[in-house]
Amino acid sequence: MKKKTIAIDMDGVLADIEVQLIEHYNKAHGTTLSKESIQGLAEDDAFDRPLLRSVLNADNFFRTLPVMDDAVESLLRLQENFEIFIVSAATEFPVSLAEKVDWLGEHFPFIKWENIILCGSKRIINTDFMIDDHSKNLDYCMGKPIMFTASHNINQTHHLRVNNWKEAVEVLEKTLN
Amino acid sequence: MKKKTIAIDMDGVLADIEVQLIEHYNKAHGTTLSKESIQGLAEDDAFDRPLLRSVLNADNFFRTLPVMDDAVESLLRLQENFEIFIVSAATEFPVSLAEKVDWLGEHFPFIKWENIILCGSKRIINTDFMIDDHSKNLDYCMGKPIMFTASHNINQTHHLRVNNWKEAVEVLEKTLN
Repeated sequence: MKKKTIAIDMDGVLADIEVQLIEHYNKAHGTTLSKESIQGLAEDDAFDRPLLRSVLNADNFFRTLPVMDDAVESLLRLQENFEIFIVSAATEFPVSLAEKVDWLGEHFPFIKWENIILCGSKRIINTDFMIDDHSKNLDYCMGKPIMFTASHNINQTHHLRVNNWKEAVEVLEKTLN
Repeated sequence: MKKKTIAIDMDGVLADIEVQLIEHYNKAHGTTLSKESIQGLAEDDAFDRPLLRSVLNADNFFRTLPVMDDAVESLLRLQENFEIFIVSAATEFPVSLAEKVDWLGEHFPFIKWENIILCGSKRIINTDFMIDDHSKNLDYCMGKPIMFTASHNINQTHHLRVNNWKEAVEVLEKTLN
């Protein structure tokens, strides 16, 4: 039987971007943001957009992100029953493109290049499930949306939520029955 | 009314890859291939795969491709009535990723980063139309497939074919009536 497909986001879902973003942003712009101070704020309210862009456009920012807890084991396990596509909004930051492919090659070498998608809008991605931390992606997705908890989305309640990879695996495997 | 969507391939459709590929391949590997000698041959029959990969992985190969005849004017015109997504298989060659975004920025500055998708497989791309030169992409596409003529596909007859951008615009605009 054909496996069901999952589109999995990178930043905030596979890659633990929050701490590194705050650290690089504070260092570059002399600010004193903390994980607590941006809790519940949309990205554009927590950060100044042009300043944020300069951090995200810097060499090696995306290449050095830590891996989210349990992400590797979870994808290995999910791959037994699902076809996984990594779908990451990346074309806004061209320097991130090769870095993201390299990062996946290092941490998730079992994901083939055929299953990596670097995009802008995710509106034309059609998978059975989409795991993402952003409403702007989940609201228009063609399959079943699953919101992965991040500081910026904790007040949003209109999507099924998972708080970590253990919960994500549980939710997805329940659909196999 | 919501515009219908078109996924448009880059190599062999927007970017005229054939002549430059033969030229770089011959130069790198001392071969004497010509446009005539590879006519009707699948890519893997026309080229030795590992040798081909070394050409496609070279810096600046994708960045310097010429633009296909009438492509710019055609996309500008189609954009009036359709939403255009550029969907290019690129993750196999990480060096091509930023080069493709830069190339589009130079030649098609009216295409926003939101509408650029660099992928591997195109199986989860869902648009109303897909214009591509490869059966491997068109055979599984979710919308209406349109084959753009290239040397390697001239003997394939199972998709609606357009030979150039003038014909592509004609075919697509007919669907508006």
